[in-house]
Amino acid sequence: MIVIMRSHAPQEQVQAVIDRVHELGFRPHVSTGEERTVIGIIGDERHLQEDAFEIIEGVERVVRVLKPFKIASRDFHPENTVIPINGCRIGSKQVILMAGPCSVESRDQVFEAAEAFKEAGGHIFRAGAFKPRTSPYSFRGLGEQGLCLLAEVKSAFGLAIVTEVMAPEQVPMVAGVADILQIGTRNMQNYNLLDAVGRIDKPVLLKRGMMSTMEELLMSAEYILSSGNERVMLCERGIRTFETYTRNTLDLSAVPVLKELTHLPILVDPSHACGKAAWINALSRAAIASGADGLLVEMHPHPEVAISDGAQQISPQAFRELMADLERVAEAVDRSL
Amino acid sequence: MIVIMRSHAPQEQVQAVIDRVHELGFRPHVSTGEERTVIGIIGDERHLQEDAFEIIEGVERVVRVLKPFKIASRDFHPENTVIPINGCRIGSKQVILMAGPCSVESRDQVFEAAEAFKEAGGHIFRAGAFKPRTSPYSFRGLGEQGLCLLAEVKSAFGLAIVTEVMAPEQVPMVAGVADILQIGTRNMQNYNLLDAVGRIDKPVLLKRGMMSTMEELLMSAEYILSSGNERVMLCERGIRTFETYTRNTLDLSAVPVLKELTHLPILVDPSHACGKAAWINALSRAAIASGADGLLVEMHPHPEVAISDGAQQISPQAFRELMADLERVAEAVDRSL
Amino acid sequence: MIVIMRSHAPQEQVQAVIDRVHELGFRPHVSTGEERTVIGIIGDERHLQEDAFEIIEGVERVVRVLKPFKIASRDFHPENTVIPINGCRIGSKQVILMAGPCSVESRDQVFEAAEAFKEAGGHIFRAGAFKPRTSPYSFRGLGEQGLCLLAEVKSAFGLAIVTEVMAPEQVPMVAGVADILQIGTRNMQNYNLLDAVGRIDKPVLLKRGMMSTMEELLMSAEYILSSGNERVMLCERGIRTFETYTRNTLDLSAVPVLKELTHLPILVDPSHACGKAAWINALSRAAIASGADGLLVEMHPHPEVAISDGAQQISPQAFRELMADLERVAEAVDRSL
Amino acid sequence: MIVIMRSHAPQEQVQAVIDRVHELGFRPHVSTGEERTVIGIIGDERHLQEDAFEIIEGVERVVRVLKPFKIASRDFHPENTVIPINGCRIGSKQVILMAGPCSVESRDQVFEAAEAFKEAGGHIFRAGAFKPRTSPYSFRGLGEQGLCLLAEVKSAFGLAIVTEVMAPEQVPMVAGVADILQIGTRNMQNYNLLDAVGRIDKPVLLKRGMMSTMEELLMSAEYILSSGNERVMLCERGIRTFETYTRNTLDLSAVPVLKELTHLPILVDPSHACGKAAWINALSRAAIASGADGLLVEMHPHPEVAISDGAQQISPQAFRELMADLERVAEAVDRSL
Repeated sequence: MIVIMRSHAPQEQVQAVIDRVHELGFRPHVSTGEERTVIGIIGDERHLQEDAFEIIEGVERVVRVLKPFKIASRDFHPENTVIPINGCRIGSKQVILMAGPCSVESRDQVFEAAEAFKEAGGHIFRAGAFKPRTSPYSFRGLGEQGLCLLAEVKSAFGLAIVTEVMAPEQVPMVAGVADILQIGTRNMQNYNLLDAVGRIDKPVLLKRGMMSTMEELLMSAEYILSSGNERVMLCERGIRTFETYTRNTLDLSAVPVLKELTHLPILVDPSHACGKAAWINALSRAAIASGADGLLVEMHPHPEVAISDGAQQISPQAFRELMADLERVAEAVDRSL
Repeated sequence: MIVIMRSHAPQEQVQAVIDRVHELGFRPHVSTGEERTVIGIIGDERHLQEDAFEIIEGVERVVRVLKPFKIASRDFHPENTVIPINGCRIGSKQVILMAGPCSVESRDQVFEAAEAFKEAGGHIFRAGAFKPRTSPYSFRGLGEQGLCLLAEVKSAFGLAIVTEVMAPEQVPMVAGVADILQIGTRNMQNYNLLDAVGRIDKPVLLKRGMMSTMEELLMSAEYILSSGNERVMLCERGIRTFETYTRNTLDLSAVPVLKELTHLPILVDPSHACGKAAWINALSRAAIASGADGLLVEMHPHPEVAISDGAQQISPQAFRELMADLERVAEAVDRSL
Repeated sequence: MIVIMRSHAPQEQVQAVIDRVHELGFRPHVSTGEERTVIGIIGDERHLQEDAFEIIEGVERVVRVLKPFKIASRDFHPENTVIPINGCRIGSKQVILMAGPCSVESRDQVFEAAEAFKEAGGHIFRAGAFKPRTSPYSFRGLGEQGLCLLAEVKSAFGLAIVTEVMAPEQVPMVAGVADILQIGTRNMQNYNLLDAVGRIDKPVLLKRGMMSTMEELLMSAEYILSSGNERVMLCERGIRTFETYTRNTLDLSAVPVLKELTHLPILVDPSHACGKAAWINALSRAAIASGADGLLVEMHPHPEVAISDGAQQISPQAFRELMADLERVAEAVDRSL
Repeated sequence: MIVIMRSHAPQEQVQAVIDRVHELGFRPHVSTGEERTVIGIIGDERHLQEDAFEIIEGVERVVRVLKPFKIASRDFHPENTVIPINGCRIGSKQVILMAGPCSVESRDQVFEAAEAFKEAGGHIFRAGAFKPRTSPYSFRGLGEQGLCLLAEVKSAFGLAIVTEVMAPEQVPMVAGVADILQIGTRNMQNYNLLDAVGRIDKPVLLKRGMMSTMEELLMSAEYILSSGNERVMLCERGIRTFETYTRNTLDLSAVPVLKELTHLPILVDPSHACGKAAWINALSRAAIASGADGLLVEMHPHPEVAISDGAQQISPQAFRELMADLERVAEAVDRSL
């Protein structure tokens, strides 16, 4: 950590910072410039708060030197983490397509979707049983009943299942069915939930909060990792900006940046990012070309009658075309589907 | 709800929309312009999703006519909601100052803070026992022990207590001590938690998500209200923007806008918004002048040794000055402290 | 345009809107719902302001039906606009790579850059003579002298030149050398400058403002198009968000969305978007995969001694690798370099 | 400037940074931590670019120590700058209300507005002759003719005039009439225009870009100041965020923050920030309470027929009420109107 003093701060203010550094068990390293004094703090700053110094009179700014995440960091774990699931290896050269409807709506709907997905060559099926909805008056998912239908799909088609868990008390129940537990964008900083999935032995798909920085995403991953669960994959799904044509702004820079910062696999969800079926193909191609390890795509057997998110779900036909298109792009970046 | 067709969309596409409107049990109202056809949908659109129409070929855009919130709306409940607590009437002409330290750190610290607050004339004391923290390595509050200390403060000083609850399973425990349950900014869309506080008989202070629109804030209030708990107060606490000098950007426009949209009391938290003690006074004055019903301010007996958020907590002395300054501003807008 | 009245607005307020519609020479179309009245306005709304109705008592909201841009719109001009320059066809199946240093720094530097670019197979060379800089103390370009050096490069290497123009009075001078005039991100809404480049007979590369919506970008294009200059190409270069790891957030959704809305060619500038050389390759591949018509990349013969923007400029060697990588991606989306 | 090396960067990378520091004429100050080496650079960093070091292999991040603005800084000029105009002293204890219509529309309109303003006790009248408009099809102001009408108003009523200048070539003409030249939000980084107003002897009102940071605002002020014009006042007018209920988000934190950073007067424009007449009063009161030196308010004799921005202009009657309300708030913060 580096403490930057105000211009021409008097010596007693500098000394107050130095004293505080010693009190907290660190070592100061003072550098006197022409206008300002800068104090470096030697030691593991992850256990320090900027506040401890910002409050001292004469301090202008405090800058961290270390990244605040550790287990999630590539410095700590240089090799890519690879998570094997149902014959797929997430984080390897293979690009993974997870797809399925927004919500489990009925036995017929989810079986039809799963059949189409299986036929198209899919391995990891997504569908929501518990649905976070902005309005209390919207369809909030079939809950436990939806989970049972997913268990049926799993055994009928041999597909792995990824589905969302919304509260700590749901974790055991969802983990009983799901192969991957999804933490949704609105729960990325629900720390009790992160603790809960950190203590189980199942892979976790952690979606970036729609207004969270990459650093906050990695700090939330750090919650899960530091609780003992090492199988975490990240998912960029669009961030909130001033632009209104798209539902959110897909931040594909996050792929190369996160690849540099962390060893965890990076997926991309183009469906929630843009909110419109017509743009999914272009954004999926771009995601693969940027280096993503996989995609999470919404596909519904009949998007026009979907109970939720109809506008952004693609049809099974569009999904097959998407797979064909992505195979070519994957190859062009030395990967395979 | 209004469906706007693409320019010169053919009649069969228009008909498909009309058919869908009938299928869903609503009535269409077609208006043919020079370039575009527009279809109004008559009925209570709160039970309709835009998606149901956006997915139909030829549809360019779907616009809601009604506001999606109902019980929270001033149309539904024209008079201000007033919430009486410990001799205060939140939402009345009286301006309420809730203050106290970021976290309960120890018995001595919380008693010293409470004593200073009581002497300054305060009624509702704030302090965190459960603390949401970005890093798993930061101090996460004293938890149950912190709650016990708050119970002691309550009986020792006759202060009402507002404190955060982070998970549904904590609700009964926190409600056993707190007079107001706070939902923090990162949990504004934790729907299981909103449901849980909606079922108890205690006032709820709902903080705006740092990444949430006013409409989403009102929809989250609607969750609580529609579960049966009518004592909800809202709190603007800064939103995330591109500006980096301040921690967040305090959105004071939210005060007059929310006053127009809803009957619920509106508080303002300048401490988390700006992140720096030196700016609290100016922003507190501005909040009262804009029409806020009260403030939530962080005050610590010794900010320089605070375990969390030291930089934004003011001293008891600064708090007394703040109260004196705010009394004058309150009077200038025909209110009292 | 659609005027949505407040809930249960009285008949005289509705009548006031109807009267105003007639006064302004349009026809009203009233639709009475259960809670609200909605008034459609028939006629070419591009000459109407929402304000004309928002100010009337009882009006809650005014919604546009038509897009505010016309000549830029694909409705108006369904075929892609193709702009031929120096043997390239911008907007065709061919993907165009424009590259070169941030600034013209010296004769040696710009010749070395141009030679490397030419050898790598480039056609359109970029370099800044007039540089917009946040600080008045930074290097602001060589100005006219830089322009002369670009004229030399042009004749020596047979490269077309794209370079920025910053003020209306510079337009004739810059147009004397440049094959494409670039309007920078900070000048996207400098309307006097847009008017000036609208009146000349040279292609214009219009960069999206870092703080501008796609609609505003198209409205700025409309300024140029409506002044008579039809050769406009758009460039996405990153927008400002809360994320700080990258300089800006590259909005690749803009590519498919703009392709749907407009017939103009869409380029992408990954260099300014992310601000770091290491991420350029991944983002360039993503841009091409998303459907962009070309790229604008910063390349410097010796990035480590560049006077401006060193961190985001790639070396000639990295540029040759980039071209090879992009050739494969272009092919995978049925295009060529 | 401080250069932070990557974790365990080898000695030759550290040496490369040290060599570069010497080459550029500065002195390095190396501090070796447990994981990282940090190199402080001693000298006036305002003439250094971060890029010069970011590009060197092994460098993780570069942090500025000094603020990039100098003449605008309170460090440089501790006392408030006070600008006397027409009997007002902007930047003193006196709070200044500048008001008038969005655009000069006609002789009658502008005279009626000026008369009402004068009667209400106003001193500095605002109205636009040159209007920046998003659409080329909107009313763009009366131009020179509008300027002549403002000259008439000035001599008829003895009011000082503040009006916008949009291009360098308009500066002499506008300066011939205006007492204060306004730089609009879209031109805050139009550097040629900043240079032009920096060379004249008239006060300048510089509006913050709607997506510019406070630091960028101060850097733009620095352009004007460093060209020799010391009479600059700043104006916060709302920034662009994800919130859509208000046109922009008024950032009142900017008032205390800018007051700390700079000696220049700070005005607030609530009209453009919120976009709706009904919210102007609350936001104006808040602005004064936060410490602003004045306001810029849109007032139209007949807002319902205004050619531009009708929805946000208040009537003369509302303006008189506003003045009365503000007088009380000003007094409550020890200032006067």
